[in-house]
Amino acid sequence: MVQRRPAEVGMSIDQIDTPALVIDLNAYERNLDKMAKLIKKSDKRLRPHAKMHKSPQVTLEQMKRGAVGACCQKVSEAEILVEGGVADVLITNEIVTPSKLKRVAEIAKQATIGICVDDASATIELNKQCAMLDATVTALVEIDVGGRRCGVTTPDAAVELAKIIENASHLNFGGLQAYHGSAQHMRTPAERSDVVENAAKIVRGTVSALKAAGITCDIVTGGGTGTLMHDINHNEWNELQCGSYAFMDADYGKNLFADTEYGTGFEHSLFIYSVVMSVASPDSVVTDAGLKAIASDSGNPIIDGREHLTYNLSSDEHGVVLLGEDDKIGLGECLHIIPGHCDPTVNLYDWFVGVREGKVEKVWPVAARGALS
Amino acid sequence: MVQRRPAEVGMSIDQIDTPALVIDLNAYERNLDKMAKLIKKSDKRLRPHAKMHKSPQVTLEQMKRGAVGACCQKVSEAEILVEGGVADVLITNEIVTPSKLKRVAEIAKQATIGICVDDASATIELNKQCAMLDATVTALVEIDVGGRRCGVTTPDAAVELAKIIENASHLNFGGLQAYHGSAQHMRTPAERSDVVENAAKIVRGTVSALKAAGITCDIVTGGGTGTLMHDINHNEWNELQCGSYAFMDADYGKNLFADTEYGTGFEHSLFIYSVVMSVASPDSVVTDAGLKAIASDSGNPIIDGREHLTYNLSSDEHGVVLLGEDDKIGLGECLHIIPGHCDPTVNLYDWFVGVREGKVEKVWPVAARGALS
Repeated sequence: MVQRRPAEVGMSIDQIDTPALVIDLNAYERNLDKMAKLIKKSDKRLRPHAKMHKSPQVTLEQMKRGAVGACCQKVSEAEILVEGGVADVLITNEIVTPSKLKRVAEIAKQATIGICVDDASATIELNKQCAMLDATVTALVEIDVGGRRCGVTTPDAAVELAKIIENASHLNFGGLQAYHGSAQHMRTPAERSDVVENAAKIVRGTVSALKAAGITCDIVTGGGTGTLMHDINHNEWNELQCGSYAFMDADYGKNLFADTEYGTGFEHSLFIYSVVMSVASPDSVVTDAGLKAIASDSGNPIIDGREHLTYNLSSDEHGVVLLGEDDKIGLGECLHIIPGHCDPTVNLYDWFVGVREGKVEKVWPVAARGALS
Repeated sequence: MVQRRPAEVGMSIDQIDTPALVIDLNAYERNLDKMAKLIKKSDKRLRPHAKMHKSPQVTLEQMKRGAVGACCQKVSEAEILVEGGVADVLITNEIVTPSKLKRVAEIAKQATIGICVDDASATIELNKQCAMLDATVTALVEIDVGGRRCGVTTPDAAVELAKIIENASHLNFGGLQAYHGSAQHMRTPAERSDVVENAAKIVRGTVSALKAAGITCDIVTGGGTGTLMHDINHNEWNELQCGSYAFMDADYGKNLFADTEYGTGFEHSLFIYSVVMSVASPDSVVTDAGLKAIASDSGNPIIDGREHLTYNLSSDEHGVVLLGEDDKIGLGECLHIIPGHCDPTVNLYDWFVGVREGKVEKVWPVAARGALS
């Protein structure tokens, strides 16, 4: 079920079979370097989210530049990261099924593994599975900082869970997971700033409550590409989980590129190459990349160099590009498309194609593509 | 990069690892039988679309019940269908890249292959690639019947292309592709009826123009699950391409289940099994199936047996279920979720899990998952 490689090393970019997931290696490396510099100047650790790129290779390149490890959302992603040589992985999510918790204990025999908890019974089951293998896992209490997804909703509940962790034979209390997902995608810096400010207040309250109970909170982890320039000025977090900065997407571009004060300077390095397969209509052309090739959850993608055109993702395997009077796009022409949302787009592909100066330089697997369990 | 199987044959359904793509085999087989009966009573051929299920095994079960072959959208899908033993495949799409047209010619040496064209130069290139391998392909002229996607937009253009096909050394003229994609998803029978009526008029005009030019049009192929009960009463089509009927989804359910006159009686047979991983919030629970597990392009999914609840697909790996005062859902509980759109949802999984009467009866691959090229 692994699909054919869309390119071979050394090929010209014109020969890449489409649709293909293409990384502009120069832009990608500039993004990694830029983040490494930002983090170095701050007092934070960086633990980039691998749910975005699904690739141990990308994580290792981030770690070479100072990142402390990776985040991921699923046990299967963590397994693939560990198999790929990543020695420190935090599952930023709740895992409750005993068979999955057993797998968490298994990888904790091979690497440093952290996980989030927001329920006493699941924490006790996690400890039980770890004890059976004599494995130790770092558990972080997830607190709801306004994202209304997972996480305990009061400082008391956080203290209660932290105590369970501290008393568990095979768990270490790592600190707090304090991530606000929807804040990442808010359009204006003012909105994002408000939400981060409010999240910081919740973190402070929780850390105080833990302190009052005699519990030290080593790590407060959270943040993302969208709120980075706000997070970085808050002492409440000492670890940031930004993922999208490496590739960027149209949605983050809208929020961050136009912004002079809070703009990050990260560039689009991820493109879907797609060929025009129909020019039969007088006012549109049709490409070979539809919603099975470009995720549609964050709106339509944009076409690099033709940002004024509308690209409609209305069909599974067709992208319809509406043309103005002066627009000319020919049959067989290859468009370079910037997806609305990088994470679920990457997850549609088996292969990354890394290009530099018109040539294919590397082809590597989206190793955790489809790692849902 | 193939992910682990979420279940083994003989397991209880409670043991299926989540999120999983689960087929209720009884409902699925009833759907296949129902369609076979409908088609038998009509004067149509059935060529179900495999872009929906991505599985040669499903196609072969449809062919056992009388289907003449499969449709698909991509060369890579056609290759996988042919490798899986499907002897007659129609690519209902335009293919223009020479390297891909060469692959079309290659599978035409192994099976009966049809393809759509809407451009003279691509048709000539197709013939050239077929000639090099001494392969013969059936080419159908795609006409735009109002869907504004691909297809020639005038009867004259159709005649011109049909002549090119008839004069080509290694192509047979198969007839017309006359499919209206967006009509499938229109909410009311009246809207769908109008669109099908208009499409039929365009077909009639094109067939007449071909006849006047001395060209016989053997096959007019198109239609889908959404417009089935309209298509079946139109003489303009003699081959139908319905795909979703086998699994159904929430979007088609909205259009077809409530309708007494045009309802089809097909049932939901496709479910995403997803476990509740967080109950920390007082007014919602969080599942392990987000927008990487359930396609979001056709709106939120519904929960089987809890249709009144809202399931928000707002995060990659989280589904947030909003609870009313009387709703109780426990940690670790497994929900059976009906996706908004079956096609792109199936494409997120490596494995189908077929269940019957509480047991796993078969596990088989989504063989053409990710077949984009």
